[in-house]
Amino acid sequence: MINYKIIFNIIGLLLLIEGIFMLFCIPVSLFYDEHDFISLALSASITISVGTITWFLTRDAKKNIGKREGYIIVCLAWTVFSFFGSLPFVISGAIPDFTNAFFETISGFTTTGASILNDIEAMPRGLLFWRSMTQWLGGMGIIVMSLAILPILGIGGMQLFIAEVPGPVPDKLHPRIKETAKRLWGIYIIFTGIEVLLLLFGGMNLFDAICHSFTTMATGGYSTRQAGIAFFDSPYIHYVITVFMFLAGTNFTLSYFALHGKFDKVWKNEEFRFYAGFILGFVLLIMVVLLLTQNQTIEKSFRHALFQVVAISTTTGFVTANYLNWIPFLGVIIFILMFFGGSGGSTGGGVKILRVVLLLKNSYLELKRLIHPNAVIPVRLNREAVSPQIITNVLAFVVFYMLILIFGTVVMSALGYDMDTSLGAVAATLGNIGPGIGGVGPAHNYFHIPDFGKWFLSFLMLIGRLELFTVLILFSPAFWKK
Amino acid sequence: MINYKIIFNIIGLLLLIEGIFMLFCIPVSLFYDEHDFISLALSASITISVGTITWFLTRDAKKNIGKREGYIIVCLAWTVFSFFGSLPFVISGAIPDFTNAFFETISGFTTTGASILNDIEAMPRGLLFWRSMTQWLGGMGIIVMSLAILPILGIGGMQLFIAEVPGPVPDKLHPRIKETAKRLWGIYIIFTGIEVLLLLFGGMNLFDAICHSFTTMATGGYSTRQAGIAFFDSPYIHYVITVFMFLAGTNFTLSYFALHGKFDKVWKNEEFRFYAGFILGFVLLIMVVLLLTQNQTIEKSFRHALFQVVAISTTTGFVTANYLNWIPFLGVIIFILMFFGGSGGSTGGGVKILRVVLLLKNSYLELKRLIHPNAVIPVRLNREAVSPQIITNVLAFVVFYMLILIFGTVVMSALGYDMDTSLGAVAATLGNIGPGIGGVGPAHNYFHIPDFGKWFLSFLMLIGRLELFTVLILFSPAFWKK
Repeated sequence: MINYKIIFNIIGLLLLIEGIFMLFCIPVSLFYDEHDFISLALSASITISVGTITWFLTRDAKKNIGKREGYIIVCLAWTVFSFFGSLPFVISGAIPDFTNAFFETISGFTTTGASILNDIEAMPRGLLFWRSMTQWLGGMGIIVMSLAILPILGIGGMQLFIAEVPGPVPDKLHPRIKETAKRLWGIYIIFTGIEVLLLLFGGMNLFDAICHSFTTMATGGYSTRQAGIAFFDSPYIHYVITVFMFLAGTNFTLSYFALHGKFDKVWKNEEFRFYAGFILGFVLLIMVVLLLTQNQTIEKSFRHALFQVVAISTTTGFVTANYLNWIPFLGVIIFILMFFGGSGGSTGGGVKILRVVLLLKNSYLELKRLIHPNAVIPVRLNREAVSPQIITNVLAFVVFYMLILIFGTVVMSALGYDMDTSLGAVAATLGNIGPGIGGVGPAHNYFHIPDFGKWFLSFLMLIGRLELFTVLILFSPAFWKK
Repeated sequence: MINYKIIFNIIGLLLLIEGIFMLFCIPVSLFYDEHDFISLALSASITISVGTITWFLTRDAKKNIGKREGYIIVCLAWTVFSFFGSLPFVISGAIPDFTNAFFETISGFTTTGASILNDIEAMPRGLLFWRSMTQWLGGMGIIVMSLAILPILGIGGMQLFIAEVPGPVPDKLHPRIKETAKRLWGIYIIFTGIEVLLLLFGGMNLFDAICHSFTTMATGGYSTRQAGIAFFDSPYIHYVITVFMFLAGTNFTLSYFALHGKFDKVWKNEEFRFYAGFILGFVLLIMVVLLLTQNQTIEKSFRHALFQVVAISTTTGFVTANYLNWIPFLGVIIFILMFFGGSGGSTGGGVKILRVVLLLKNSYLELKRLIHPNAVIPVRLNREAVSPQIITNVLAFVVFYMLILIFGTVVMSALGYDMDTSLGAVAATLGNIGPGIGGVGPAHNYFHIPDFGKWFLSFLMLIGRLELFTVLILFSPAFWKK
């Protein structure tokens, strides 16, 4: 029997927390003397009330959380957060249509950054602050929720570990998960704070600095400006954001080691080396091609190449140059980057570098295995043999990713979109990136997509954010048996 | 040590056979009183001479053929055949450029059907006959070479079995491979003959009937007309060709059973049921959409849907309606069909239905395995458990297919093509289909692609035709070690 009571109990508590975070947006609204504080206060009240009541009514729940409860909680948390999180937009009338508001909110909590807003600057700043915060909370959730919040409740969060932490092989940093989670959360907050300071130093105002730091660290990509980061015509700001996108796409465990001076642990980590190596390689390639094809300085070519590669490969989705205006070759390269994703244990989405590396290594070894069919030739990572189960899991993940990509493209094309737009919209939402290619490229947004498409893409964001299986498993009849 | 002598010995003999088949084209040339008979005779002489000399000089070769010799022979056979097979085009001046001639010929022998010809009707008929025959021989090679020719030479062909026969799990039909091969070859010839008769009955002239039957049974797709099958404005001819494309994409073992009245064996075969099922499903879908979007009769919608689905999914690549002029949704569907491919043991290319089915089944079960991590849940095919090695092999194949597709798209886009054309050209050559999407769609051909691109796509045709690993393994250093 699934313990529904504990599920509701936890969701109730989480809603309470969401409501409290909404309250933090009210001062922003008051400071700018805008009227959205009413809708924020109302939404916070509703969310806190529903959360508290749900929590109170289920306070006698048995504390046993199995795997199945874990999967349900994770899926429900993101869905319910997005539902209540869209209230400020709907109630204020800033996004009157519920579908649009839900799309914008789940795009926030899943740290995707796909937007339906046609005039961001017209939005009241309290709501913009909330919009940025949804991403920051989403990123925090991805790293921390299963590792810190559940243990605080006195429930061992280990069961949720497989369901929630991105990346197939999380490096255990401390025996007690609760401590681990607190540490990672601390790093997340520290990095956010440092970015705010550095952006202020570059001339950004406090509001923009906080909002952009929120969405950088979450690899979310929401901006307070319709033109995105391109609005800020400052190389310094571009570089600062690039550095923090890179950090946000790095395993937070490694950042912990680095902050404690253990740089050898970072450099010895194969995933990190591939992560840095891939980025370096792609930046050089794109920079050279930009130098050959665009009339730009070396610095500008380097900066645009670097920013776009890091923004797309970490799945942040900020943009300082429209890559679809580059030659088609670079468009294809950027599109391929959409599948790399961040590292395991980062806030990045996509397939994840670790899986890409294991996939490539295994493919190469497959040829060796064909030549020596009786030899056992394991994939090695950080000099250790990776178990066949993990390889199978990685292959299954990649195949599912591909099948969902294909299926999604069919669905979007059935709505009348051409192949590029369909493929782009699916890749950009499933990978939690934001901007795609075709009609959802950096120069466009998702406003023009019909309601059904918006709900479908919302679902893809959820699937992608929760590592596919967490959501898909709920559609397997075996899950619900006995 | 690799036994190079036996490799040359066999290649020499195969060249001799190729030269003899070239001779068969001379009567066609003489009948139409065209001057290409000189170039055909010259090419045949060169091919026969080189073949005989190579064979004679290596006649003392030890008869031991290992796996590695097998891989090399298969790869060399297709390459060398294409090299000598392009001589008639070059010598006659019909295709003066060697790159173009080689592309056209390897596109023939790999049964791809991607053409560089801008005015097919202007070609002398002896050469067109040879062009069609390259596909027929290629198809014959795919089914029979390793199963019949090598055993005739007194060399057990079993080693080559894994390297050559399409499809991962060939159903053994007869203990003695030589007999098996002869039977499949017999069916191939019988089907070709029946198609010729049926096309004659429909009003096609003998030359066109033979050429099109050659390229239908090979799932090749070369036509004697620039407009392809659309030239023949006869529903009867469209239906006849559809039936034989379907047969060519069916496991020839099953055709053998069917011809011996064992229809239960056919219907009980899961791959065949999926093959027929997929086609039926896609035909109905496309027909309904065509009825809704085009002003056509039901018969015409059905026929066009049926013809295009069978032509693309069997990788024949004949076209009676330009699917890129349909709504984008159908273009996407057709593009996806390019990956299905024929059945194992057919002349079809692509991923192959069997692999698609195993992939989908395994993916579904992966969710079940996640819920019951300790249970052994095997994939079942024809009610029997499929060994994990085969599943691993299928997954590796699909991953490689995807990686080559991505890599190929990057290469083609580096030549300046947009994503659709790049992806289309790679999918259509790697899958041995012919027409793709974008600038290599049914309304275009491959003439405009620069030389490097033509060699690259030729290589993809070879890789695709020889089930990827056969070619890729030669690039693994482990292959050449001791």
